[in-house]
Amino acid sequence: MASRTQNPGIQTPENDQENQQNPVTTLATTPWRRIERLSLHLNPFSSNHYDLSHQQMKMLICAARAKKIEVKVVELSSFMRGKHRDIQEQVFDYFKSRPELQTPLEISKDEHRELCMRQLVGLVREANIRPFKYVVEDPAKYFAIAEAVGSVDMSLAIKLGVQYSLWGGSVLNLGTKKHRDKYFDGIDNMEYPGCFAMTELHHGSNVQGLQTVATFDPLTDEFIINTPNDGAIKWWIGNAAVHGKFASVFARLMLPTHDTKGVSDMGVHAFIVPIRDLRTHKLLPGVEIHDCGHKVGLNGVDNGALRFRSVRIPRDNLLNRFGDVSRDGKYTSSLPSISKRFGATLGELVGGRVVLAYSSNGVLKIAATIAIRYSLLRQQFGPPKQPEITILDYQSHQHKLMPMLASTYAFHFATLHLVDKYCEMKKTGDEESVGDVHALSAGLKAYVTSYTAKSLNICREACGGHGYAAVNRFGSLRNDHDIFQTFEGDNTVLLQQVAIDLLKQYKEKFRGGSLAVTWNYLKESMNTYLSQPNPVTSRWEGEDHLRDPKFQLDAFRYRTSRLLQSVAARLQKHSKTLGGFGAWNRCLNHLLTLAESHIESVILERFIEAVRSCPDEGSRSALKLVCDLYALDRIWNDIGTYRNVDYVAPNKAKAIHKLTEYVCFQVRNIARELVDAFDLPDYVIRAPIGLQTPGEAYSQYTQHVGF
Amino acid sequence: MASRTQNPGIQTPENDQENQQNPVTTLATTPWRRIERLSLHLNPFSSNHYDLSHQQMKMLICAARAKKIEVKVVELSSFMRGKHRDIQEQVFDYFKSRPELQTPLEISKDEHRELCMRQLVGLVREANIRPFKYVVEDPAKYFAIAEAVGSVDMSLAIKLGVQYSLWGGSVLNLGTKKHRDKYFDGIDNMEYPGCFAMTELHHGSNVQGLQTVATFDPLTDEFIINTPNDGAIKWWIGNAAVHGKFASVFARLMLPTHDTKGVSDMGVHAFIVPIRDLRTHKLLPGVEIHDCGHKVGLNGVDNGALRFRSVRIPRDNLLNRFGDVSRDGKYTSSLPSISKRFGATLGELVGGRVVLAYSSNGVLKIAATIAIRYSLLRQQFGPPKQPEITILDYQSHQHKLMPMLASTYAFHFATLHLVDKYCEMKKTGDEESVGDVHALSAGLKAYVTSYTAKSLNICREACGGHGYAAVNRFGSLRNDHDIFQTFEGDNTVLLQQVAIDLLKQYKEKFRGGSLAVTWNYLKESMNTYLSQPNPVTSRWEGEDHLRDPKFQLDAFRYRTSRLLQSVAARLQKHSKTLGGFGAWNRCLNHLLTLAESHIESVILERFIEAVRSCPDEGSRSALKLVCDLYALDRIWNDIGTYRNVDYVAPNKAKAIHKLTEYVCFQVRNIARELVDAFDLPDYVIRAPIGLQTPGEAYSQYTQHVGF
Repeated sequence: MASRTQNPGIQTPENDQENQQNPVTTLATTPWRRIERLSLHLNPFSSNHYDLSHQQMKMLICAARAKKIEVKVVELSSFMRGKHRDIQEQVFDYFKSRPELQTPLEISKDEHRELCMRQLVGLVREANIRPFKYVVEDPAKYFAIAEAVGSVDMSLAIKLGVQYSLWGGSVLNLGTKKHRDKYFDGIDNMEYPGCFAMTELHHGSNVQGLQTVATFDPLTDEFIINTPNDGAIKWWIGNAAVHGKFASVFARLMLPTHDTKGVSDMGVHAFIVPIRDLRTHKLLPGVEIHDCGHKVGLNGVDNGALRFRSVRIPRDNLLNRFGDVSRDGKYTSSLPSISKRFGATLGELVGGRVVLAYSSNGVLKIAATIAIRYSLLRQQFGPPKQPEITILDYQSHQHKLMPMLASTYAFHFATLHLVDKYCEMKKTGDEESVGDVHALSAGLKAYVTSYTAKSLNICREACGGHGYAAVNRFGSLRNDHDIFQTFEGDNTVLLQQVAIDLLKQYKEKFRGGSLAVTWNYLKESMNTYLSQPNPVTSRWEGEDHLRDPKFQLDAFRYRTSRLLQSVAARLQKHSKTLGGFGAWNRCLNHLLTLAESHIESVILERFIEAVRSCPDEGSRSALKLVCDLYALDRIWNDIGTYRNVDYVAPNKAKAIHKLTEYVCFQVRNIARELVDAFDLPDYVIRAPIGLQTPGEAYSQYTQHVGF
Repeated sequence: MASRTQNPGIQTPENDQENQQNPVTTLATTPWRRIERLSLHLNPFSSNHYDLSHQQMKMLICAARAKKIEVKVVELSSFMRGKHRDIQEQVFDYFKSRPELQTPLEISKDEHRELCMRQLVGLVREANIRPFKYVVEDPAKYFAIAEAVGSVDMSLAIKLGVQYSLWGGSVLNLGTKKHRDKYFDGIDNMEYPGCFAMTELHHGSNVQGLQTVATFDPLTDEFIINTPNDGAIKWWIGNAAVHGKFASVFARLMLPTHDTKGVSDMGVHAFIVPIRDLRTHKLLPGVEIHDCGHKVGLNGVDNGALRFRSVRIPRDNLLNRFGDVSRDGKYTSSLPSISKRFGATLGELVGGRVVLAYSSNGVLKIAATIAIRYSLLRQQFGPPKQPEITILDYQSHQHKLMPMLASTYAFHFATLHLVDKYCEMKKTGDEESVGDVHALSAGLKAYVTSYTAKSLNICREACGGHGYAAVNRFGSLRNDHDIFQTFEGDNTVLLQQVAIDLLKQYKEKFRGGSLAVTWNYLKESMNTYLSQPNPVTSRWEGEDHLRDPKFQLDAFRYRTSRLLQSVAARLQKHSKTLGGFGAWNRCLNHLLTLAESHIESVILERFIEAVRSCPDEGSRSALKLVCDLYALDRIWNDIGTYRNVDYVAPNKAKAIHKLTEYVCFQVRNIARELVDAFDLPDYVIRAPIGLQTPGEAYSQYTQHVGF
C-alpha cells in the first residue's frame, strides 16, 4: 500500500480519546449521513441532503486560502531560471520556426530516426548551436541545450548526447591532442556521426567483464579488433544501426609477449574504429551491424548491435590519454595500475550521469505541470446539488501530486548544484572534487530518475482517461524516460557506489582523515548519533520546531548516520561467516537505503540553502513552504524508522502527519503559480490538457480531435 | 524510498548489541576489505582478494537450497489451472495456426485497428469461439476467453469486451426480450459491432453528471438524442471511430410534462442508437464522429468521440428492463425511485470489473514470468576471479521480484474466487450477493490493477537494457494495461465504494443486523479490536507463530478493524465542523487505506484457503511458503502501523523482517518452478528473454536481431 498506509497507527492519540466513549452510543448520525450521501453519487436527485450549502463549502475550502502566500511568478521564475536560459530559448525558437521538424504523435521507427537526424543536423548547421564547443568550454551550457532539446523530443536529446557527450566526449577526454585535431571539427559539424561502443550483450553494468579484444600487431603497427563470442557483441549502441561513421570501441588491450601465453591483457581501453565509409556510407570490412529494433521508447535513436571480425585500425586510434602503446609494442602510462587507469577512464564519463539527473528533472517538470494544470481544471463530483469541485481539492489527489511538486523543486536545486560542482571539477581537476562529483552524480542520477519514473505513472493515472490520450504526452514521456534508470549506470549499481563511498568516508573519519565536502555533515552527526536521541526534543511538536530547517536536516542526517553506522556493524558481523561478497549481499537492501537516505540529506541541504538565498520575499516564503513539504513528507514516509528508535515520540509523529497534510493543502493553493514558475512555454508543454491558459484546455482538445 | 527504508530502525536490536563495543576498535578489516573489493569492480585484476573461494561461495549460496521444497510443476499447475483451460487452448491454437493474425511489434494505429477487427472476426467466425454465448450461459468461461485473447493482444481483449460485455451486455442486461430477439445474433456473429457510449468529455467517474439527453416525442413515438454542449460529447467510445454500427447511449430521459418546465428529467437511461448504415457503413444523419486519436496503448481499439444532433430513434430502442415509457409518454418501472433504477442499471455492469481484475493478474503473470526467467539467466558480477552470479541471487533483486511473485499467486486465488462469486450472483440474483460482488469487484479491480501497473515498471527496470527491447514486451504490456486503473471505474473512486460499504456494514453491526459474507470477519475482530493488543502475543517471535495463518490473518484483520473504527470516529468528529463532504475529504487518505487493508485481508483469506485445499503435498508446501511471503511482506511494509499501536513489540518486528527476507530467499529457490506452474506456453510469453528453455534466451534474442 502507499505511504498513506501508516496513517492509522499515528491517528491513535486522536482516536483513542474518541474511543473512550462507547462507539455504539457515539455513532451519531452525521457520518452515516455522509455515507448515504456518497451512495447517492450513484443515486442522483434524492431530495435528502444534509450537507452544507455551497456558500459554506466555498468558505471552508477558502479558509486556509486566506493565508495564501502571494507568489509573483515572474520573481520566482527569474530566481529559478538558470544562467543559460538564452540558449534554451534559441533552441525553442528554432524548432518553433521549423514545424516540419516537429515529431508527430505517430511515426514509424525508421522515419523517426531520419527525422531525429534532421533535427540534430538542423540544430547544428542551421541554428548554429554547437553543443561540442560547450562540452569543452562550458558544460553547464551544454546541459542546458540537452535539457531544451529533450523537451522537443527526448530521442533528439539522447542522439545529441551520443554524438557529443559519449562519442565526442570519449575522443576529447580519453584521447590526446592528435585525436582532437583530427576529429573535433567532424564531430562538431556532424560530418562524423559516431557511436560509443561499450555495452555488450552479456555485460552492461559489469564493464570490467567486457570481452571484445584489441590485439596489437607489431608487424603492421595496427590493432585487430575482434568479437570473440556472441556474448561480446556490442549491443544497444546508439547511432550504430543507421548513421554512425565511427565508434569508440571499448575492448581489452592485448599486447604480444614472449612467454607461452603469447599475449598480455592490459585491461579495457577505448579505440576509434571507423565503421562506415565516409563517402559511400557502406559498412567497412569485418564490421557486421544489425538493428536492435523497436524499443519501448526513444525510437528516434538508431541502436545497433556490432560484431567485429579482425577489423584492423592504426595504432594511433588507441585513445591514449591514460595509457599508450609504442611502435614496438611497449605499454606506457602515467598511471601506476590497470585499476587506476580503468578508474580514470570511467571517471571521465561522469558527465553523462550529470546530464541525466538534470534532464530527468526536466521531464518531471513537464509531467507535473501537465498533471497539476489539468487537476486544477478538471471537476468531478461535489456536494449534492452544488457545482462540482476541482479534483486537486481532493485530499487523495493532493497526496498524489503535491509532494511530487515539492520534489521537483528540491531536485531542481540539487541538480543545479551538481552541474556547478561538475563544472568546477572540470576546471580544477582536483582529486577530492572528482570523488565528490562521482558519488554525487551516481546518487542523484539514480535517485532522481527512479523518482521521475514512478511519478510519470502517477501523473498519467491522476489525469484519468484524458491522461491516456497520446497527445497529452505521459505515454511518450514515460516510454522515453524509462531507460534513464538503466543507462549510464543501472540505478541499483550506482546506489551501491554511493554506499561504498560513504563507508570509505566513514572509515576515513575513524582514521582521522578529512571528509569530502558533501560528506562533512557525517563527522558532526556521527557523534550525535552515537548518543541516544534526546528525549526532550523527541517530544517537541510545535509547528515552528517542525518547520525549523535544523530539525528537518538533523532528522535526515541522523537517519543517514545511523544507517551508516549500523550497516558497517552488520557488514563486519556477517563477513566473519559469509565472507565479503556474502556479507555485502546480505546487507544489500540496507546499503541501498543508506545511499538513498544520504542523497535525500544532500537534496534537502541544497533546498534549504536555496530558500535562504532567495532575494524576493514572496518567492522565499513559497519556497520555504515547498521545502517544508519535501522534508516533512520524507520524514513521514519513513516514520517507522524514526519511531522505532524513539527519535520521535508518538505525539510528535502525529504532529508531523497533521502538519504534512496541512502543508500539502497550502502548497495546493499556490500550485498553479509554482508550475508557472517553471517557465515552460505552451510550445514546450504541448499537451492540450496542460496549457497555461486555463479554460482553453478542453477546446484545444476538442479541436485536436476534429470538432 | 522503498519499503526497505524501514530496515534501519528494526535492525536496532541486532545493532545495538554490536554498538556497545567501541566502533573505532571493532572496525575490523573485513568489511573494509569488502569495500575495497567492491571498488575493484572498477579496478579489475588486482592481486589482492580476501573473498571466499568459489567453492565456499557456492556452498553458502546452496546452504538454504538444501531445504529447497520439491515442487512438481505438473501437480501445482493442474491445481492452479482453472476449469476453462480447454477453451483458452483453443484460442492459443487458433492464433498459432494463423500467424498472419499476430500483431507485429511495429504497426500503425489504423493498421492495428483493422488487424484487431480481423482477429476478433476470425475468432468468432473461423475458430467458432462465441464469447456472447458464455456471457449468458457461463461467465467464467467468457472471462477465460478474455484472459486468453489478452495474451494474444490486449487490444483484442478490450475490443472483445466492448462488443460482448459492454455493448452486448447492455442489450442483454438493461434490455428486455424484444431487444435480445432483435440483436443477439448480430452481436454474437459480429454483424452488429457496437459501442458503449457512457463517458462524456466532462464526465467520467461522475456518471450521474452525464448531460446527453433523450427527449420523448409523443407525436412520432420516438426519442430525440441530443448533445447539448461540447462537454457532453461522448468520449473514448470504443468501436466508435471505425467499426461500430450501433451504440448503447447513456442519456437523461426527458418526458414532456404539462407544467411550465415542459419536460421532466427521469434520470440516466440507456438507448440503442444506430450510428452507421448497416449496408454502406456511412454515418447516419445527425451523428458526428471523430477519432480520439493515438493513445498511450491499446491502439488496436478505435476510440471515438460522438456528437448527436437531434438523432431520432424508435421508442422501442429504450433499454427498458428497469424503466419504460408507454406510447402516451407515461413512465413505468418496477423500481420505486430514480436512484434505485440508476443503481440497478450500473449494477449490471459489474462484470467489467471482474474481468479487469482477472485479466490484470493475467498480465502480471506474463510480466513476472519474463522478469524472473531473465533474472535467473542473467549473470552480472560475482566474487573476484570467480564466475558471475545470477542476478536473482542478489538480495535487492529478490526484494523486487519475489513479493511480486507471491502477490501474483495471491491475486490468482482471489480473482478466481471473485469469478465464482460473480457466477453465483448471476444465477441466484439475491441482493446480499449482489452487494458483496459489487464491493469485492470494485476493491479487487482497484487493488490488483494498481499493483500490476507498478509491477510492470519494476519488471522492466529489473531486466535492464534488455527489458527495454520492444520484443521483450514490457513496453506494450505496460502501455496497454495502464488504463486498467481508470476505465470501468477510476481506482480511487472504486476504493471509496469499498470504504462506503465497510462503513455501512459497520453501522449494520451496531444495529444488530447481519454482515455480508465477505465482511463476516469484522464482527469477530471488531470485538478483539476494542480490547488492547495482547502484550504476550505481541512479543511472540517464533517462526511457527509467524507462519501461523491465524497470526497472519489476525494481523490483517486487526488492522482493517482498527482503521474502520478509527475512521468512523474521525468522520463523526469532522462532520461537526466540516459537514459530510468536508469530513469525507478530510479523511480521504485514511478511507483509501481502509479499503486497501480490507481487500488485502480478503486476498490473504482466499490464499490461506487455497493452501488448505491443495491436495498435492509438495505443491501445498510451496504454496504455503508463497502465502507466508505474501502475508509477512505486507505486514512488514506496514510495520509502522503495527508498532505504533504495540500490536507487535520491537523484537517481533525484527523477527518478522528477518523471516521475510529468509522466506523471500526460499521462494527465490523455487521461483522457476513457480512461474512454470502458471503454465504459459512460450507461444504466449513470446519475449525472447523469458522463454521456458533456459539458455536459449540469448540465442533467440540474437536471432531476432538478425545474427
